[in-house]
Amino acid sequence: MRIGIDLGGTTVKAALCAEDGALLCKQSAPTPTGDAAGLCSTMKQLALALCSEGGTAPGQITSIGIGVPGSFDKATCTLKFGTNLGMNNVCFADAFRPEFGCAVQLDNDANCAALGEVTAGAARGAKNMVMVTLGTGVGGGIIIDGKLYTGCNGIAGEMGHIVIRQGGEPCGCGRKGCLEAYASAASLVKFAERALVAGRESMLQAQTGHLNAKMICDAVDAGDALARELFDEYCVNLSCGLASFINIFQPEAIVLGGGLAGYGEKLLEPLRHLTEPQTFRSDARNTEIVCASLGNDAGLIGAAML
Amino acid sequence: MRIGIDLGGTTVKAALCAEDGALLCKQSAPTPTGDAAGLCSTMKQLALALCSEGGTAPGQITSIGIGVPGSFDKATCTLKFGTNLGMNNVCFADAFRPEFGCAVQLDNDANCAALGEVTAGAARGAKNMVMVTLGTGVGGGIIIDGKLYTGCNGIAGEMGHIVIRQGGEPCGCGRKGCLEAYASAASLVKFAERALVAGRESMLQAQTGHLNAKMICDAVDAGDALARELFDEYCVNLSCGLASFINIFQPEAIVLGGGLAGYGEKLLEPLRHLTEPQTFRSDARNTEIVCASLGNDAGLIGAAML
Repeated sequence: MRIGIDLGGTTVKAALCAEDGALLCKQSAPTPTGDAAGLCSTMKQLALALCSEGGTAPGQITSIGIGVPGSFDKATCTLKFGTNLGMNNVCFADAFRPEFGCAVQLDNDANCAALGEVTAGAARGAKNMVMVTLGTGVGGGIIIDGKLYTGCNGIAGEMGHIVIRQGGEPCGCGRKGCLEAYASAASLVKFAERALVAGRESMLQAQTGHLNAKMICDAVDAGDALARELFDEYCVNLSCGLASFINIFQPEAIVLGGGLAGYGEKLLEPLRHLTEPQTFRSDARNTEIVCASLGNDAGLIGAAML
Repeated sequence: MRIGIDLGGTTVKAALCAEDGALLCKQSAPTPTGDAAGLCSTMKQLALALCSEGGTAPGQITSIGIGVPGSFDKATCTLKFGTNLGMNNVCFADAFRPEFGCAVQLDNDANCAALGEVTAGAARGAKNMVMVTLGTGVGGGIIIDGKLYTGCNGIAGEMGHIVIRQGGEPCGCGRKGCLEAYASAASLVKFAERALVAGRESMLQAQTGHLNAKMICDAVDAGDALARELFDEYCVNLSCGLASFINIFQPEAIVLGGGLAGYGEKLLEPLRHLTEPQTFRSDARNTEIVCASLGNDAGLIGAAML
C-alpha cells in the first residue's frame, strides 16, 4: 500500500491508497506553519494513524509521496522555498524513519493532481493527458505514457505560461500576455473589476472591490449581460490556449481543474465549441476536454502514485 | 541493420543504417510522381541496392521506415494524401515483399528529422527534445524519453500552430496569430515584401516580388537596416514560441531545423538572449537551443529508427 500527503498552507492531508491508487482512508491535521520539525512529526503521525486505520504495518508501505506548494529538489527530497508554509530548505527524506523504510517522493501539487486524475479520476487510464488548473494562477501537469512528465529539471508543465497575446497583460512570471493573465480565475475577476470601475452596468456593481469568480459565474446564471460578456471572453482566451495544447500534444484528454472547473458543463460546452475549429483533427481519435472529478482527493492519490 | 527512406517530391532518398542509427550508405532515385506502383518499385530497388552496397542480405534488415510528406495512417502503413507526390491512398505494407520480411513504419518528415537529430545529431542522447523546423511552415517533432511522441492519434507535434498573437496574422491552418505566421521562413519573406511594397529603403528593393529568406539573411550580413529590423523582429517572435515550449517541456534541447537554421550562431545568439528571461529556470539544468547538425540525413536516420 501507498501513502499520499498533500501539504497545504492550513491543513496537512494524508491518504492510504492501494497499489492501483484506490483511496482507502484519509486523515488530516493543521499545518504547523513555520515549524519544520513539527511538520515532519505531524506527517509521520498521520502516516502511522493511516496504517492503524487501514490495518497495515508501516513496513508494508511501498511508497510515500508528498505534494508540495513551492519549489523543491526531488533528488534530495527537499522543499526549497515553501512560502505558504513559512519554511525553507526542509528535507523530508528521513522524516518517516525509522517506522517507514520506503523512499519518499516529492512533486508539486498540480502535478500530483494530474497523476491522481489519470489514476482514478476524469482521465482514468489515459496514456497521454494534460491537466490545466484554473485557480489563482493557471497551473498544470503533463502525463505521457501514463507517467508524470517533468522535463530535464523537474519543472516542466507550466501550462499557464505560454504567451497567447504577445505584449499583452503583464503576468506574474515576468512575461506579457501569458495564458495565466487571461484564463486564471484571478484574471476573470481582474477584468470584471476593471469593467465595474469603468462604470459598466451590472448586478455585480455592489461587489466591486470584493469580487470572486463564483460571484461572476452566479451573475452569468442570473442573466447579467456584463458577466456573460466577460465569461464569453474568458472562454475565448482559454480555448486559445487549449487548442495550442491539443496541436502540440493531441492527448486523449485535457482535464480542467481548480475552482472554475466547478462550473462544469457550463464551462465545457462553450470551450469545446470554441476549441475544435482551432485544432488539427484526426479521423481516428481526438482530444476530449473534461473537468476533474476527484476534487481535493486528486492531489492525495497522485502523491501516493509518485 | 535498418533502412530509412525519405520520400520527397522530386527525389526518393534511402539509407542503410546500423542498429544505433549510424549511417552506412545512401542511394537515391527520382520520384516517379503520380505512379504508385512505380514508387513502390523504386523504393524496393533502392533498398535492395543498399543491401548489396552494404554487404547484407534483405532478410537481415530489422526495420524499414519511411518519412512521408502529407497525411498517413500508421496502422495500415498507408499514405492517405500525398499531394506533392501526386498520389493518394498508397499502402506501403507489402511494397518490400517478398525480399524483405520486416515491418514497414511510416511517420511524417519533421518527426523523422527529430528522431534523427536525437539519435545521431545535435541532440544526440537527449531523453527529451523538441525540434522546430523553420521552413515554408513551422513544423516540429517531440521526443520524450528517447522516443517519438505522436499523441493519441499520431498527429501531435504541430509546434507551428500555437497562437502567439490572438487575432493576428492569418495562418494556413485557419487560426490567426500562429507561431508559423510569424516565425516561418515564408513569413520572414512575407513581412519583407510588405515593407518593400510600402516603399521602405533597402538593398532588397530590386528583389521585390522574388525574395527568399537567404537574401534577407545576406542583407542583414551586409548591414541593411530594414533587413536587420525584420530579422530582429523575427527573432522576437520565434523566441516567444520557444520560451513557451521551454515552459511546457523543459527539454534538454530545442533543435532548430529547416532552411533558416543554416544561419547558425547568428540566429542562435539573439534567440538565446531573448528566450532566457521568458522561461522558468532551474539551478540544476536548463534547455539548450541548438541548430540541427545532420541536414537532410536527419530524416533518413530518423526514418530508419522509427
